[in-house]
Amino acid sequence: MTYTLVLLRHGESDWNAKNLFTGWVDVDLTDKGRAEGVRAGELLKEAGILPDIVHTSLLRRAITTANVSLDVADRHWIPVKRDWRLNERHYGALQGKDKKQTLEQFGEEQFMLWRRSYDVPPPPIDEDDEFSQAGDARYHGLGPAMPATECLKDVVARLMPYWENEIQQDLADGLTVLVAAHGNSLRALVKTLDDISDEDIAGLNIPTGMPLVYELDEEFRPVTRGGRYLDPEAARAAAEAVAKQGR
Amino acid sequence: MTYTLVLLRHGESDWNAKNLFTGWVDVDLTDKGRAEGVRAGELLKEAGILPDIVHTSLLRRAITTANVSLDVADRHWIPVKRDWRLNERHYGALQGKDKKQTLEQFGEEQFMLWRRSYDVPPPPIDEDDEFSQAGDARYHGLGPAMPATECLKDVVARLMPYWENEIQQDLADGLTVLVAAHGNSLRALVKTLDDISDEDIAGLNIPTGMPLVYELDEEFRPVTRGGRYLDPEAARAAAEAVAKQGR
Repeated sequence: MTYTLVLLRHGESDWNAKNLFTGWVDVDLTDKGRAEGVRAGELLKEAGILPDIVHTSLLRRAITTANVSLDVADRHWIPVKRDWRLNERHYGALQGKDKKQTLEQFGEEQFMLWRRSYDVPPPPIDEDDEFSQAGDARYHGLGPAMPATECLKDVVARLMPYWENEIQQDLADGLTVLVAAHGNSLRALVKTLDDISDEDIAGLNIPTGMPLVYELDEEFRPVTRGGRYLDPEAARAAAEAVAKQGR
Repeated sequence: MTYTLVLLRHGESDWNAKNLFTGWVDVDLTDKGRAEGVRAGELLKEAGILPDIVHTSLLRRAITTANVSLDVADRHWIPVKRDWRLNERHYGALQGKDKKQTLEQFGEEQFMLWRRSYDVPPPPIDEDDEFSQAGDARYHGLGPAMPATECLKDVVARLMPYWENEIQQDLADGLTVLVAAHGNSLRALVKTLDDISDEDIAGLNIPTGMPLVYELDEEFRPVTRGGRYLDPEAARAAAEAVAKQGR
């Protein structure tokens, strides 16, 4: 008896394409990003891995990727749960900033610290910054949990209750679970699943639009460490491209 | 203190365009149908009527209409509930049949009895008919409640528990509720809301893609009978077109 968990990072967004830090800014998918969602749905359907329930963040790029891929896989009708705990890492004051300019302005060391260190968050964003979500209705219930910036460690901390209370529960009910989320919220989840160290997680890049399938045992540990991509060739090429972002 | 309920019939589907009886057959929207979804989202946004939760059927044309309109209205992130009780009327053995041919084959009287009588269902569909949903995974949980045909009275009967237990509960919680559904499941709901007789409901045609807003009192009775369309001119023209279908 194993459980099936499918992780899906959203397809290319407007700001991926423009090379801007996005975080919680609610940008749309590009046409390429939608096509990635279609391809993800085809891969799920071909593999016969049919989600019984989908969990998404509160951000459009993950929601639309889920909608598009599930429609193609003929699973558009499954139950949906959404939660801010699956959101991308909040990128603080860097939200809306150009990655290349940020690299030039602050230098390689600081840039990589913000991007890939485990516990150094960028400076917090001002509440009245145009890219702040402080006044966004979808986060009104959060109260003091509402972040103004996050490091990956913060993402792990806010994701864990959702993983343990919501996603594990659905898996234990025997449901095939699709999680449609983001580069860093999925890195946080994979770090936990595969027990990756605080140092090594920096080197993990999850490609966009590629279903990553984990079979889990009854204690929610992967049967095969790292899971498996439904299109491993494409996933490898895409992960290498992600690693080069900002260069 | 009033509650706000928004009803939205899906946009034009492939089989609306082809003039076939659809029922529970899970056809897609046409490009025109998607455009209707976009327009519905614009109308909601312009009116400042922002759903806090959406209820859909298990059918693609309602799900996609909800997805498209909520995305345009910037409410893509709200909670979602889906239920077969919001499905279109099951059209029995007529599913997949041409409306005009059916009219010619069976005559005006029988045709109108199946289309508009309150309590005469079409003949049941065979389980092995290509347009039967008997083996469809999404309905496995229904057991003996799974219909093989339905009249409008049957739709009212299966919709009422959902209206009373699920939708009313969300309204009572103060949420603006969007129900994205179908011509006949929405007629069933409007019949109850406006207390329309079994005879008079035959004359009610709900246009596609037009948000219909009801303000309800604390006993879930409409403050204004019939509610209001956000684009009343377009709704009137569209309802007249629906009434002429099959001619």
